[in-house]
Amino acid sequence: MNREEFRKEGERIDSLQRDGYDIIQHPGKFCFGMDAVLLSSFVTAKMGENVLDFCTGTGVIPILLKAKTEASHFTGLELQPDVADMAQRSVAMNGLEGDIDIICGDLKNAEAYFAPASFDVITCNPPYMIAGDGLVNPEDTLALSRHEVGCTLDDVLAATKKCLKAGGRFYMVHRPFRLAEILKKMSDIGLEPKAMRMVYPYVDREPNMVLIEGRRGAKSGMKIAPPLIIMQSDGTYTKEVADLYNS
Amino acid sequence: MNREEFRKEGERIDSLQRDGYDIIQHPGKFCFGMDAVLLSSFVTAKMGENVLDFCTGTGVIPILLKAKTEASHFTGLELQPDVADMAQRSVAMNGLEGDIDIICGDLKNAEAYFAPASFDVITCNPPYMIAGDGLVNPEDTLALSRHEVGCTLDDVLAATKKCLKAGGRFYMVHRPFRLAEILKKMSDIGLEPKAMRMVYPYVDREPNMVLIEGRRGAKSGMKIAPPLIIMQSDGTYTKEVADLYNS
Repeated sequence: MNREEFRKEGERIDSLQRDGYDIIQHPGKFCFGMDAVLLSSFVTAKMGENVLDFCTGTGVIPILLKAKTEASHFTGLELQPDVADMAQRSVAMNGLEGDIDIICGDLKNAEAYFAPASFDVITCNPPYMIAGDGLVNPEDTLALSRHEVGCTLDDVLAATKKCLKAGGRFYMVHRPFRLAEILKKMSDIGLEPKAMRMVYPYVDREPNMVLIEGRRGAKSGMKIAPPLIIMQSDGTYTKEVADLYNS
Repeated sequence: MNREEFRKEGERIDSLQRDGYDIIQHPGKFCFGMDAVLLSSFVTAKMGENVLDFCTGTGVIPILLKAKTEASHFTGLELQPDVADMAQRSVAMNGLEGDIDIICGDLKNAEAYFAPASFDVITCNPPYMIAGDGLVNPEDTLALSRHEVGCTLDDVLAATKKCLKAGGRFYMVHRPFRLAEILKKMSDIGLEPKAMRMVYPYVDREPNMVLIEGRRGAKSGMKIAPPLIIMQSDGTYTKEVADLYNS
């Protein structure tokens, strides 16, 4: 089948610059950003492990993790049928049907799709903004990707608690302004925060992302990584970020 | 009175390099470090406000805040009589008896010394280590300064909640490995984390301190500052840190 046959009108095919994989995106809906790239690099997933990605969108996280890790199998859950369909076509276009399952469904009903405590690793690049904060049109796909309309942080954590094995690892990228809320809620629900990395656009700017790892049932105590700085003062990528895209 | 008359045997007088103030320290007990300097620079205390410092030790935080802020009055609470006495002599030596009160007492009985909700700002550079973790001699002054023998994080937060006005600000320096616990406990007790700054010894190293601001009764939502980086790769201070010591 020709690659173009996977693409629907208004969509485009972008390279992931990783193992030759491509991804179908729709500019009017949501295109993956640096947060997805950084999250996929922050995740540790080992041989024999199975990985579940909530709010998978176009499936960018499972596809990147397939390229970057040795994990055995990946599943992406997406609420919106048209977006899940796009993700499914990207999986097929890359010949990854045996490695990645895309499921269209609501993580609030995660138990309908997944056995309890059945995943070693769960990842999520959730909507960052609290519903209502600057929200214009709650029907629209972009709004759903950015605002907590379809699911809230509480929903993500509750579903993760259900699906993650004891001792399993949860990885999320989020906005720093919600850090206290995130760490508290993770701890309260038993997904103890164990590692964190702050992402700063420049060395002298406030962070605009935070990468967090939790572990189900772990005791308290965190390891915080060196700062992840995106740009040098001249506006080009730092070596670490350039290497992320090129390695 | 000659400055030397304030000094007891085994103690030394060190310059704070700030408004001509000096401090009495005992090398066998505890000498202030960069954490105290960074905390005092992180604190905002305005004209007319009164400030309480828990675990004040030699009184370095109140003296530095007197030099750096416009706040009207400062109080330092210290558990150990010999250390509180040293702090009191430093206050007198600097002629600050009208500005700084040193009280010897236990913050677990804070209500015995202070009226409820009577301070605009509370600061604390507490012992960082959980009692038992590598603790050799719980009797010794250094151990009390570093390990939660005399007071725990819970004690500090409970005393802060009692003494801080509604809307008042709490500033603390601590170790990053306890970040999740700190933010959760602050939030749980009603000292909502509002600002934070990670301190990295070098731009490519893990942070070794974190500066945190809470506000009593505030709603959730944090502002995270640019990274505070101590050293350049050649081992000299970054401009920001050099300026902290020289301004």
